[in-house]
Amino acid sequence: MIKLLVVGTVAYDSIETPFGKVKDVLGGSALHFTNAASFFTDVGIVATVGKDFDLNKIAFLKDRNVDMRGIEVDEGKTFRWEGKYGYDLNQAITLKTELNVVETFKPRIPPDYRDPGFVFLANIDPELQSYVIDQIKFPATVVLDTMNYWIENKYKELIEVIHRVDMLVINEAELREISKEHNLVKGARKIMAYGPSCIVVKRGEYGVLMVSRNEIFLAPAYPLEDVFDPTGAGDTFAGGLVGYLANIGDTSIETIKQAIVMGSVMASFNVEDFSINRLKGLGYDEIKERYSAFKRCLQFGDIKFK
Amino acid sequence: MIKLLVVGTVAYDSIETPFGKVKDVLGGSALHFTNAASFFTDVGIVATVGKDFDLNKIAFLKDRNVDMRGIEVDEGKTFRWEGKYGYDLNQAITLKTELNVVETFKPRIPPDYRDPGFVFLANIDPELQSYVIDQIKFPATVVLDTMNYWIENKYKELIEVIHRVDMLVINEAELREISKEHNLVKGARKIMAYGPSCIVVKRGEYGVLMVSRNEIFLAPAYPLEDVFDPTGAGDTFAGGLVGYLANIGDTSIETIKQAIVMGSVMASFNVEDFSINRLKGLGYDEIKERYSAFKRCLQFGDIKFK
Repeated sequence: MIKLLVVGTVAYDSIETPFGKVKDVLGGSALHFTNAASFFTDVGIVATVGKDFDLNKIAFLKDRNVDMRGIEVDEGKTFRWEGKYGYDLNQAITLKTELNVVETFKPRIPPDYRDPGFVFLANIDPELQSYVIDQIKFPATVVLDTMNYWIENKYKELIEVIHRVDMLVINEAELREISKEHNLVKGARKIMAYGPSCIVVKRGEYGVLMVSRNEIFLAPAYPLEDVFDPTGAGDTFAGGLVGYLANIGDTSIETIKQAIVMGSVMASFNVEDFSINRLKGLGYDEIKERYSAFKRCLQFGDIKFK
Repeated sequence: MIKLLVVGTVAYDSIETPFGKVKDVLGGSALHFTNAASFFTDVGIVATVGKDFDLNKIAFLKDRNVDMRGIEVDEGKTFRWEGKYGYDLNQAITLKTELNVVETFKPRIPPDYRDPGFVFLANIDPELQSYVIDQIKFPATVVLDTMNYWIENKYKELIEVIHRVDMLVINEAELREISKEHNLVKGARKIMAYGPSCIVVKRGEYGVLMVSRNEIFLAPAYPLEDVFDPTGAGDTFAGGLVGYLANIGDTSIETIKQAIVMGSVMASFNVEDFSINRLKGLGYDEIKERYSAFKRCLQFGDIKFK
């Protein structure tokens, strides 16, 4: 039985950064998310790929108990994204998007995926996100991501699905665009008025801001000397976060704070190589070691002055 | 006897933000720095003002033991800066700079200011910063700030003075420009090779990164809902930081970490009002309260997963 359902994309990415260039490598929100979350819990993945997709390339996820029966192989080609980054790796420039099989994707949740406890709705059409929620059994903790395209083109539908979820994991620009508020804390409070009890704001190399009804939590990003490719960092962060929540099995604010730190740790690995490569062979010892190193960067003693 | 010497500017600022507009209000690096540092230690300030400057307006600093005999009143007008901000308060647009008396300023350190223990060289000509160092008695901990103008126009002189200081407190863009390195950690290590043992990188609303020979420390900024005017936030941060170090009287990495948090607390007050207004009437109880609130935003329990 899965404990965490993710619905999103599995893609072929072509990426250029100042440090290298790759063509048709594994990517997509659901894949990056699963690659991180599967270290912590049993993930079921729902996505669509085309006949050109080589499922063997993600077979390693079965060793981490990922259930991949929810990946539909449809007539046509796999979703493709082409993008590049300058030295300011915070900002991707999209060169080409080919929706292909994603264009007609309708996420059917396999019957034994319908009671997962935790759901991550990666960035897809908000109407499809609502359709996923229709199919699952509650109680479940539902976490949602989105992007500027849906905010601009399906605002009403997006607000509708936001009413039905517990947590948003979005970036700064998305928060501002949804809430029509420049200040992040105020913007988060506006969105919480629609229902979610927790807004997690991704700020790239600057880390994460979490706003809940009664608390604010700030976590910087792990300070890397060599960032290679940021593609998928946001989904990897969400994977570590929701995967950790599913592992612990509660959604108290204290657990969410730890989950945010774990998400940051996982994201810090993701950006060290192209595609899903760095997390593919990652060991638990490396995760624990980086968590300890990260914690050392954040701790300070109590202030005392005369 | 003073314990902390600051050399910089005392200015009249005219500022426009989306939230209001003021003309000829108190400003300048040395004044913002002193306004914060004087909560923690005995500050002596060296700067120049014109005949048009009303010293009565800063007389309140005497109640916090600030020694202002080092402020020279020269023939001419006080230094003036005019700037504005959009909703992205991280970026000031300079509309006008009138150097006035600062143009011929030569910082003469009064004899009884020459053995302070701690020195803050605010953003002035690096040749003048070196001239200040020539006049002080060692051992002293010297902290330096600068700006793009000096990096671009007096690079050699700036590198020379960097060789003579212990700590830099600069912003991200300045670090990149001095070190010619995009990655902040790498850039900080390059600059440390010139002598300083600690680089404190200001990242505005995203907080602070500190790099020392053996450690990295990250402190987010205090999450405010209403930021009114960021002018002087960097100098206020430095004032809290160096003021706290002078109070404790040591420069261990553990004390520096606490000092960075205290600097962030002081900067969070500064941006809540124009000019030096917010810190002018600030109480120690408010400082301690905000420190506690800030700490709650940064703490998380140890990670454990199955």
